[in-house]
Amino acid sequence: MTADRPKVVIVGAGFGGLTVAQSLARVPVDVTVIDRHNYHYFQPLLYQVATAALSPADIAWPIRGILRRQRNTTVLLANVTGIDVDACSVRAGPVDVPYDFLVLATGATHSYFGHPEWATVAPGLKQIEDATSIRRKVLLAFEHAELTDDPDEQRRLLTFVVVGGGPTGVEMAGAIAEVAHHALPAEFRRIDPHAARVILIEAGPRLLPTFPEDLSTYAHRALERMGVEVRTLARVTNCDEAGVDLEEARIEAGTVIWAAGVVASPAGAWLGVEQDRAGRVKVGPDLTVPGRPEIFVIGDTATVTDAAGKPVPGIAPAAKQMGRYVADMIAAKVESRPLPGPFRYRHQGDLATIGRKAAVVKLKSVHLTGFIGWLFWGFAHVYFLIGLRNRAVVAFSWLWNYLTYQRGARLITDGPAMQMMARDEKTRALPETAEGGARSGRDQARSGATDWR
Amino acid sequence: MTADRPKVVIVGAGFGGLTVAQSLARVPVDVTVIDRHNYHYFQPLLYQVATAALSPADIAWPIRGILRRQRNTTVLLANVTGIDVDACSVRAGPVDVPYDFLVLATGATHSYFGHPEWATVAPGLKQIEDATSIRRKVLLAFEHAELTDDPDEQRRLLTFVVVGGGPTGVEMAGAIAEVAHHALPAEFRRIDPHAARVILIEAGPRLLPTFPEDLSTYAHRALERMGVEVRTLARVTNCDEAGVDLEEARIEAGTVIWAAGVVASPAGAWLGVEQDRAGRVKVGPDLTVPGRPEIFVIGDTATVTDAAGKPVPGIAPAAKQMGRYVADMIAAKVESRPLPGPFRYRHQGDLATIGRKAAVVKLKSVHLTGFIGWLFWGFAHVYFLIGLRNRAVVAFSWLWNYLTYQRGARLITDGPAMQMMARDEKTRALPETAEGGARSGRDQARSGATDWR
Repeated sequence: MTADRPKVVIVGAGFGGLTVAQSLARVPVDVTVIDRHNYHYFQPLLYQVATAALSPADIAWPIRGILRRQRNTTVLLANVTGIDVDACSVRAGPVDVPYDFLVLATGATHSYFGHPEWATVAPGLKQIEDATSIRRKVLLAFEHAELTDDPDEQRRLLTFVVVGGGPTGVEMAGAIAEVAHHALPAEFRRIDPHAARVILIEAGPRLLPTFPEDLSTYAHRALERMGVEVRTLARVTNCDEAGVDLEEARIEAGTVIWAAGVVASPAGAWLGVEQDRAGRVKVGPDLTVPGRPEIFVIGDTATVTDAAGKPVPGIAPAAKQMGRYVADMIAAKVESRPLPGPFRYRHQGDLATIGRKAAVVKLKSVHLTGFIGWLFWGFAHVYFLIGLRNRAVVAFSWLWNYLTYQRGARLITDGPAMQMMARDEKTRALPETAEGGARSGRDQARSGATDWR
Repeated sequence: MTADRPKVVIVGAGFGGLTVAQSLARVPVDVTVIDRHNYHYFQPLLYQVATAALSPADIAWPIRGILRRQRNTTVLLANVTGIDVDACSVRAGPVDVPYDFLVLATGATHSYFGHPEWATVAPGLKQIEDATSIRRKVLLAFEHAELTDDPDEQRRLLTFVVVGGGPTGVEMAGAIAEVAHHALPAEFRRIDPHAARVILIEAGPRLLPTFPEDLSTYAHRALERMGVEVRTLARVTNCDEAGVDLEEARIEAGTVIWAAGVVASPAGAWLGVEQDRAGRVKVGPDLTVPGRPEIFVIGDTATVTDAAGKPVPGIAPAAKQMGRYVADMIAAKVESRPLPGPFRYRHQGDLATIGRKAAVVKLKSVHLTGFIGWLFWGFAHVYFLIGLRNRAVVAFSWLWNYLTYQRGARLITDGPAMQMMARDEKTRALPETAEGGARSGRDQARSGATDWR
């Protein structure tokens, strides 16, 4: 019935891969989308899951649900383990899926600059599971600080280090400061979450290096007003269970979050082709692999210099533009129409949020900051969510958080809740009097329940 | 400052324990609530998390958040590992917490009737983690059926067995049938989710044995109308990776869910006191442990015959009533007022939902079924949720699910997504033609993308 329609296989249903699939809805091809997750997720809001403002389901949708009405498209949940470029076949879990056109849009993961062992102590934020695991870690730090009576350990547990001053690092640092200073203080009796330290470390001279300098300066000041300690020109030389080493100092910290480097997923290794230092595949101006006109690589998996000579950044709008370009190219080839010219990237702007009523926005020559920037950021993000339901839920959650300072998704789930306590596993009585503990005078004044015996 | 106020320690922040804490807000005692989770959750809606209608955060709240304004109360996230009844001290993680009054409200877990090894293949539904793990299992069954081309394996993967015909079993069976027959069919290309079998197994002669017989009959018929196979007087003799054995038959099934027996948590063992067959502590008419007037046991952890001679059922309203009674008793002792009489349970009714527009409700002499019962069930559950935010989100989600037949929380997270595929891990090509596969004629007709080569 459709046996002679060209087969398009798309690996990865992020912004790039999903856009290719959607743009091929009315093209006479059979599309197969393969992803190792059953959902597409909105990565720009992942930090809000990591900081308990949103639930995973608020920013994720089943890929099948998004593509359900697209009758030429099949979705497979499978791990791709290799590609046979001569047989034109993708190995996906237990099956081999043949293709006429292949699109690799497998994204990127964290790079620890040659220190993969840091991954266990300094988790990054790329996947939904990363976000729930960071959420667990941050919330447990407060819980364990409340349980211990060792003041050094309390201080360590209440120190949060974010490595990397790009948009993700800025957003994480601001959001953790808000949780510590606004959402939690009324809820603890033995510690004062106000005393939590949030430290943002950037190796370069300024935060948000891809933004104009005035916006970097604004972000720096706004974070400091929120109580974040910003350290630029600081380089991490080691991460371990108990903290991080900088070139000139040691910071004891209960939580270290990695927002510094990215490296492409192993698509280049599958193909056995040339990659740049970050593992990205070097593609031609038509986004195909040199010598393989049937294989496209897009999004964070590719390194692209567009027709205007500019390197294309690793952001969602770029991945979507590449996705539309590739779909046009495939449609033109299938329908024997003239092929489009080389890929041309149109930069629409840069956005990053810092916290409550503070964000930076650059749109061509317009720079927005503060409340206006924050509103723009919020509307833009709600607009780009998929589906009315998630837009409504996210908008409602944000309004709620804004009005109440509360965070709705503060659950510690999915993991061994007690694992961090191994450090502290001596049985002992809690202190008899306030003096025996680590509480500040302020804390005692706030609490009527600090005495244990 | 408060050193001579009596110390009340509450272990477990379920319906019973939380009610005790809240009822002591204005009593001159220092309260410590210890739970191994940082959240209280609304167990009656757990099956909706397991079947992707709601997110965990929709039915759970941080315990600290609920009790934040109660200045006499401290919350600890810790595992209780033992109680020293002579020293009046609870061992909680790394600390010993002394008490003058102790309330044990630690709930119950699944009982596999002497077959603990069934727990790994037939998960039960008591915790948030159980719900997300069942959700993963159910959704992966459809995904793996779509990937395989062995018709026997597809049939097995698309067979769901629920063991136990009480309210949880009825609700799970109905909800899985709705997911299979309404939410998913348009999204698969190689299998037909309509063909999924949902089998509900009950050892006794009728479903919902604690309900009046007319409501049992209604539930049985309503489930059959929804496509659930109901088998009463059927006893499970074995569970394994590939299915279940009944006394007179074998059912090959990809998913088995256990909703049959409960056993109390180990509070009785901590105390070293008399328990019934289900591990529940036998308490006196004032809910104290015989010989220990300072130790109360409530909710599913206790076996209670109330002042009217009736056994108290293991449901949320009973746990809450016991919680209020214990708080009154402690307040009376602390304030040297006359003690309340023996505990008296007031049964308010029974509710169970079956599916879209079908529920059973018994309120004294009123029996409701169908759409009216379903509306009553929905309003009652939203009413008992804590907090405006979660009420709004749950009501919105239900309205959305009702109007669209979609389920909003269909994420496969938290686990090794591919683990179930180990059974199927031979690499092979997908079938060349429809005849090579397992698709029904209907399925081919529905799909334009079933050919792989």
